[in-house]
Amino acid sequence: MTYCVGLKIDRGLVFMSDTRTNAGIDNISTFRKMHIWEEPGERVIVLMSAGNLATTQAVISLLDERSKSPSERVSTLLQTPSMFQTARLVGETIKEVIKNSSPDGQSADSYFNASFILGGQIKGSEARLFLIYPEGNFIEAGEDTPFFQIGETKYGKPIIVRAYDPGMSFAETAKLLMVSFDSTLKSNLSVGLPLDMMFYELDTMRVGFRKRIGYDDQYYRMISDGWSNALKTAFNSLPEFDEL
Amino acid sequence: MTYCVGLKIDRGLVFMSDTRTNAGIDNISTFRKMHIWEEPGERVIVLMSAGNLATTQAVISLLDERSKSPSERVSTLLQTPSMFQTARLVGETIKEVIKNSSPDGQSADSYFNASFILGGQIKGSEARLFLIYPEGNFIEAGEDTPFFQIGETKYGKPIIVRAYDPGMSFAETAKLLMVSFDSTLKSNLSVGLPLDMMFYELDTMRVGFRKRIGYDDQYYRMISDGWSNALKTAFNSLPEFDEL
Repeated sequence: MTYCVGLKIDRGLVFMSDTRTNAGIDNISTFRKMHIWEEPGERVIVLMSAGNLATTQAVISLLDERSKSPSERVSTLLQTPSMFQTARLVGETIKEVIKNSSPDGQSADSYFNASFILGGQIKGSEARLFLIYPEGNFIEAGEDTPFFQIGETKYGKPIIVRAYDPGMSFAETAKLLMVSFDSTLKSNLSVGLPLDMMFYELDTMRVGFRKRIGYDDQYYRMISDGWSNALKTAFNSLPEFDEL
Repeated sequence: MTYCVGLKIDRGLVFMSDTRTNAGIDNISTFRKMHIWEEPGERVIVLMSAGNLATTQAVISLLDERSKSPSERVSTLLQTPSMFQTARLVGETIKEVIKNSSPDGQSADSYFNASFILGGQIKGSEARLFLIYPEGNFIEAGEDTPFFQIGETKYGKPIIVRAYDPGMSFAETAKLLMVSFDSTLKSNLSVGLPLDMMFYELDTMRVGFRKRIGYDDQYYRMISDGWSNALKTAFNSLPEFDEL
């Protein structure tokens, strides 16, 4: 499986993804699931993927026009006029890849399915965040649903639901997402370190702070250990059940 | 869906289940999912169910011998010589019901599937806790896996993983399970109040403290509100990300 989160805050967009891919439980590899395209000052596009690895890699390669010779390639993601058109382009590409992989064509429960979180900003328009389904259609994050998760989403959802606030700083979202990822990692083998993290600051049209968080990351270790203790303290701070 | 947890602590067994049943999202009902059989001083048997409601009700009815006239009925669960035999009996009954419901016979992904948590104690032997699969086979809780969840298990797992301790008191497990259920309820519509809770104290062979927790339950409200705040406090107590 996979776990990716895209989050919209007042200051911009935040992305985090894990890197574990598995086919069965004894065939585990590390693959980047966060892909970034940038034309500094003009646009930043981020795409995170969950699902069949052959499908997601094919989608990325097609968007990058890797079917052409290297000198002729210009990623189509650098040419779309708006984020909405970018989401449509990604959606169409997913549909095409799944259709070509499945002998029976596109279906909701296809083995070749994949879903994507797309976020970014193109000069002259607003920063936007989309969740794109295997069927190629998509939804956009808004005030009421300011974040999207794909992959193994359930373990890490409660903390985001409770602690998210649109006024958060980037540092606070880093903390929030590390707690959410750590809860997932502790409960599910199919999500694993290292993690990729990226902050996009509104209207900069530039990739912001970017980091790969590995096993030896001091801050992640602090959060992981600290959260266990903080949770126990929080738990102990609740009133006792006194009806016995 | 459903959410049920059976927990083994040094002092005994703890059970909690929700009561929401749904077929689609506009067909929602309340059904008890915790069933208790007691012969005071001799045995206590608790069965919690998740899955197809027709299957789980049929299993309970068969175990209760409701096919007989009321005067002839003696629940077969009151006659088994050991908890292991009880688990086998429940397993066989599940298999039989699913087989009779499915035109194609038993299969792993049958629409008629159901799983059960079975716990209790029979005089002369130890208290035991089992998870029974739709296939009729089962596993037992031990030191390393002291709890079982069925239904919508993921949201509420992280807090149990982190805060569980075999030396807990019953009051502490009540708090723990309420937090776990509240996290699930807040994230998933298919799990709903009221909740059923029961404590079994080791070697008493008697149903212990028992309660139905409804919308107006003061303690549950305190935990639900308090946990949001406690989580925020816990979250704020973690060190800040200072690499920006």
